[in-house]
Amino acid sequence: MTLTTGFLGYRFMGKAHANALDRLLMFFPDAPAIERSILIGRNRDAVEEAADRFGFARVETDWEAAIDDIDVLYNLGPNHVHVEPTVTALENDVHVFCEKPLAPTLEEARRMDSAARRSDALAGVAFNYRYVPAIQLAKRMTDAGDFGDIRRFRGQYLQGWSADPNFPWSWRNDTDMAGTGVLGDVGSHTIDLARWLVGDIDSVMGNLETFVDKRPVEGSDEMRPVTTDDEFSALVSFESGAMGVMEGSRVATGHKGGNRIEVYGSEGGFRFDMERLNELEVRTGDDNGWRRILVTDDDHPYMDAWWPTGHIIGWEHAFVHENYEFLSAIAEDGTYSPNFAEGLATQKVVDAVKRSHSTGSRITL
Amino acid sequence: MTLTTGFLGYRFMGKAHANALDRLLMFFPDAPAIERSILIGRNRDAVEEAADRFGFARVETDWEAAIDDIDVLYNLGPNHVHVEPTVTALENDVHVFCEKPLAPTLEEARRMDSAARRSDALAGVAFNYRYVPAIQLAKRMTDAGDFGDIRRFRGQYLQGWSADPNFPWSWRNDTDMAGTGVLGDVGSHTIDLARWLVGDIDSVMGNLETFVDKRPVEGSDEMRPVTTDDEFSALVSFESGAMGVMEGSRVATGHKGGNRIEVYGSEGGFRFDMERLNELEVRTGDDNGWRRILVTDDDHPYMDAWWPTGHIIGWEHAFVHENYEFLSAIAEDGTYSPNFAEGLATQKVVDAVKRSHSTGSRITL
Amino acid sequence: MTLTTGFLGYRFMGKAHANALDRLLMFFPDAPAIERSILIGRNRDAVEEAADRFGFARVETDWEAAIDDIDVLYNLGPNHVHVEPTVTALENDVHVFCEKPLAPTLEEARRMDSAARRSDALAGVAFNYRYVPAIQLAKRMTDAGDFGDIRRFRGQYLQGWSADPNFPWSWRNDTDMAGTGVLGDVGSHTIDLARWLVGDIDSVMGNLETFVDKRPVEGSDEMRPVTTDDEFSALVSFESGAMGVMEGSRVATGHKGGNRIEVYGSEGGFRFDMERLNELEVRTGDDNGWRRILVTDDDHPYMDAWWPTGHIIGWEHAFVHENYEFLSAIAEDGTYSPNFAEGLATQKVVDAVKRSHSTGSRITL
Amino acid sequence: MTLTTGFLGYRFMGKAHANALDRLLMFFPDAPAIERSILIGRNRDAVEEAADRFGFARVETDWEAAIDDIDVLYNLGPNHVHVEPTVTALENDVHVFCEKPLAPTLEEARRMDSAARRSDALAGVAFNYRYVPAIQLAKRMTDAGDFGDIRRFRGQYLQGWSADPNFPWSWRNDTDMAGTGVLGDVGSHTIDLARWLVGDIDSVMGNLETFVDKRPVEGSDEMRPVTTDDEFSALVSFESGAMGVMEGSRVATGHKGGNRIEVYGSEGGFRFDMERLNELEVRTGDDNGWRRILVTDDDHPYMDAWWPTGHIIGWEHAFVHENYEFLSAIAEDGTYSPNFAEGLATQKVVDAVKRSHSTGSRITL
Repeated sequence: MTLTTGFLGYRFMGKAHANALDRLLMFFPDAPAIERSILIGRNRDAVEEAADRFGFARVETDWEAAIDDIDVLYNLGPNHVHVEPTVTALENDVHVFCEKPLAPTLEEARRMDSAARRSDALAGVAFNYRYVPAIQLAKRMTDAGDFGDIRRFRGQYLQGWSADPNFPWSWRNDTDMAGTGVLGDVGSHTIDLARWLVGDIDSVMGNLETFVDKRPVEGSDEMRPVTTDDEFSALVSFESGAMGVMEGSRVATGHKGGNRIEVYGSEGGFRFDMERLNELEVRTGDDNGWRRILVTDDDHPYMDAWWPTGHIIGWEHAFVHENYEFLSAIAEDGTYSPNFAEGLATQKVVDAVKRSHSTGSRITL
Repeated sequence: MTLTTGFLGYRFMGKAHANALDRLLMFFPDAPAIERSILIGRNRDAVEEAADRFGFARVETDWEAAIDDIDVLYNLGPNHVHVEPTVTALENDVHVFCEKPLAPTLEEARRMDSAARRSDALAGVAFNYRYVPAIQLAKRMTDAGDFGDIRRFRGQYLQGWSADPNFPWSWRNDTDMAGTGVLGDVGSHTIDLARWLVGDIDSVMGNLETFVDKRPVEGSDEMRPVTTDDEFSALVSFESGAMGVMEGSRVATGHKGGNRIEVYGSEGGFRFDMERLNELEVRTGDDNGWRRILVTDDDHPYMDAWWPTGHIIGWEHAFVHENYEFLSAIAEDGTYSPNFAEGLATQKVVDAVKRSHSTGSRITL
Repeated sequence: MTLTTGFLGYRFMGKAHANALDRLLMFFPDAPAIERSILIGRNRDAVEEAADRFGFARVETDWEAAIDDIDVLYNLGPNHVHVEPTVTALENDVHVFCEKPLAPTLEEARRMDSAARRSDALAGVAFNYRYVPAIQLAKRMTDAGDFGDIRRFRGQYLQGWSADPNFPWSWRNDTDMAGTGVLGDVGSHTIDLARWLVGDIDSVMGNLETFVDKRPVEGSDEMRPVTTDDEFSALVSFESGAMGVMEGSRVATGHKGGNRIEVYGSEGGFRFDMERLNELEVRTGDDNGWRRILVTDDDHPYMDAWWPTGHIIGWEHAFVHENYEFLSAIAEDGTYSPNFAEGLATQKVVDAVKRSHSTGSRITL
Repeated sequence: MTLTTGFLGYRFMGKAHANALDRLLMFFPDAPAIERSILIGRNRDAVEEAADRFGFARVETDWEAAIDDIDVLYNLGPNHVHVEPTVTALENDVHVFCEKPLAPTLEEARRMDSAARRSDALAGVAFNYRYVPAIQLAKRMTDAGDFGDIRRFRGQYLQGWSADPNFPWSWRNDTDMAGTGVLGDVGSHTIDLARWLVGDIDSVMGNLETFVDKRPVEGSDEMRPVTTDDEFSALVSFESGAMGVMEGSRVATGHKGGNRIEVYGSEGGFRFDMERLNELEVRTGDDNGWRRILVTDDDHPYMDAWWPTGHIIGWEHAFVHENYEFLSAIAEDGTYSPNFAEGLATQKVVDAVKRSHSTGSRITL
């Protein structure tokens, strides 16, 4: 069996997933056979050029024309175009791998989750950081009780690419198209990791901020208002009794890929920083001091597929891992996590932070 | 002129301040002459032994007996004994250097601030971290605009000494004696630094938590309830529009002296970690990347008093600096910062976090 | 034009170069078209399986049968099989990309360089670390004079995979097959980087050591003697007057990919560590402190081909870069560096270290 | 009993030892009573000012006038004035604590060691780094076999204070007064630590270099030649079979206090960097990764004397520890290490590196 795939979107995420599919065979020989079948995008010229580069056989400018001819839809477009193609695909029992966050609004996320529940197809959300080997190792150790009862989660995702007020306006700055700003965009990664590592979230308090409130439209004199947040912070309580802090920013001067997770429990803890993606700092048991593990050993998650110990992998390798898992689940009639129910649960936290900001109150989920 | 001093308290803080006074002459020759005159404590034997060790000429078991014979009272006792001796001293125009936090409750802090306003004596709060050279350098650069408009403050103070549930009960675990737990104890350091570096705080949301809710009483079988927090987190908004996150813990497994400050603004930022007290990481202007400054140069704050560049100083050196400034201010009829008004302002934030935790609402100051 | 390629070797290096060729089109669209034509190895079954996985159309068990049908030979086998296929290929004007070190002995390296000089084909040595973006940035800054006159080079390559005395014997432990041990294997990387960054080496003093002097043969009871070094150290003087230190080890307990380069000159310096391959620490001009650059910006070498800033790349990406340069040079009748003359120059330093160890004297090159 | 002391020298080292004596009582109550009796120096005005500041009762401009009136001579002057006062003191059974290196030449070092052997007084060399808690912890773990058989030592001491060619000439730049440059000055620290941690050194190969060969004389137009090294490197073999590399520099741009030690053996290793004096990185047993120990716990060497865990100490605290040990040894008729025999052994290595540089040959000790 060969799975045929269609990608809706051919920019950053399109490139990342195309690369992932291209590498599967060489590194994960037991992955199902995949065909990069149809690349979908509105601008035919750009799509054709991308299809050539990314190895797709056919292009379409209308996603509806593609649905019938593919086994798997990769929904890699902006947030506001997640819902319709996804729901249609699922209704036609086409599997969907959807980029995060699930949708701009809680209502749309609910519609998507409903469609997934009713469908025979598999629906996954591409929270890629779960599939970073260091994070997988952290999860393995957490579940084994190496850190005891988890007491605190701290997650930040700090980027600085929007710190310059002259950085141009995009759909990400528009509340109708994006839902939220940095909160949904990268905060959703933080929330998903928190839920996965520590468990369900009970209540939140949150602040949103927009430091740069208008931006130039590229190629014109227009300044357009920014209606989404460029920074958020939140306090969270987990059902388990653990507490947490979350932060995200696009205007964090000097930060590039500052996706950091810190967790500690009654017996130890761990720390991760995406800028040092191959490292995990841990403290367990009676250890005095934090131990820096270079996560490149054969017995580290997914690492036997790559290079001998000491040779690091890049950010995009997590996409190879998540694609391997998602496609294998399809091939084997298995399940995939994070699924849409989990994507929806994350969306509820996004929504609660936003509401807490407005009301000034702790929101119970 | 020689200033006579009396210390109320002879444990950790007594030792730190005694050491500071002992080192003044050798390293700060223009400091006023100081006499370590009276050491005050309830247990005469213990006080006598400490007086011998710390170089005090006389001991008293009752602070009231000492007030008339000293120029400066160092109030280094537990929080609940801050108010009475301090107010009495100030009413007698005896200068007071008081350990933080100012008091267990906002009401007592107000009484102390009132007394300070009415007194001709100087009243200072010993927020020692302001006098760490790396922090002083950060303040100097912040004020010079090197980081642009400050947008975000992040402060944590993570300790793990209470993570073990068998660590014995102390006055710090009692709400009547301590007021709050980690929030007032080390959170007040974070709040003071935030206010000093970024400005007044406008509103807060906060969570308190007590992970270990009873502890053994040393030398008995009794388990006594813990009525103070062992962990807190808070979101803060500054009057300037900057936002912030604060955290503190005594049960942060694996952390020893994790007093960390991170600030960024529109043009750059800095990072500090007490475990690496002689370092400051900065990013300014168009710099690509964070620069690690070893703050040991002659032109770094206070460092010309110590050793040639490359030779680091310890935690207790900040006490030398703060004593130098406080005592010089007395000798020169100057002012000292942080004073009691600033200590009170910090107490208001402590109080607001506590109230926000209870009410579940954002508290405006 | 499509270049046809044959790979001699299909293990670690075969996989790394096959992956590199596979990724060229997607990330470097202006690279020449490449065909993975023939995979060569002695064990037909193993070669066939690898060919399937690495995307080769045909297999051969005898390299001579392949030479006529390829434009480029990748010589990726053990050191002692470098010379014959390489010389034959060059004599037939087949381009050769040869893994390092050039050969087990200086004499063989000279034969290879001679063949390269007489051939119309291009001959390159695969010193991949030159093509790591952080190292390229260091080279760019060095050449621009950002560090002033270079005074000191420090290079280490520390691995620990052989620290266990039960780690099995291989050809790398045999002086006839490998020439030297860690000295030629990874020391040659260090020497090549030193020569590229600082210039020709004038004289050396060196020590070799073998800490584990026999090892078990896999699948038998035999213990076979180790006749190559598992650790080396050397002092080097450069023609420019700069001085240097080099070290390499396979028994450096706790080290995985410790390929570190430190350089400083009259105006600054830089530091690189392969375990943090996407980082470069620099100090320039009057900067106080070392600046950590995350080398992931669009204007960093090769990085515009990959992902937005903040998303790190892996070790194998340097292979993509070197293949891009080598194959482009073929397509454009250009030159490639490091060529065989440079490979030979490095071999001379390897040889001199070995001789200095034996004679106990400084060897002038 | 109170020990009376005389200090010959009142600059950097005078200040460091005076501070150490001043702190003994408060932190090491069981240390012998000490009197700072006589401060000795040629310039009476400067000495008087220093005596006042450092707490000395009396001053002398001629060391011979002091010898009879003290129990302990601290020889803290430039290298070329080590021999005479030291030998005289020892001949008069006055204890001597002498700054490193023992002497400018091997011959003088031998004279000093002879005098020490004949004397009833105690003779110690002030290699202060042995008394840094992190180094003590490393020694404790090394001796306990935590790292297995030691295979490699790496020591660097990199400073940059002389990188500027306009930094003025001093006695340190003169071979007659200093013996060697950076080799004896800070290289001797590295050698002493190597010998202490790993054992006797068997043979060396070495390079010396002088990058800045003349320097301005302060307050005049004269440029005076630099006849000592400003950088050295050496390869060493230990009697145990371990190997090592050593480096030192005064012109290492960007380095301040880069005194680094790295050791590994068959079972693990450790790393130390003076710029992070309170940290030790270790790897032991089957640990995956390096563990960063903040050496501030009660059960870390000497740390119960200072502050609660998490509160770091400074560079000068090692002087308190070495003085505590040296003076206690006097009071208790004990022994002290490093003694003059060890100082001489280090001097032999210094001398051998110098000779190897000249002859170009490995020197066996």
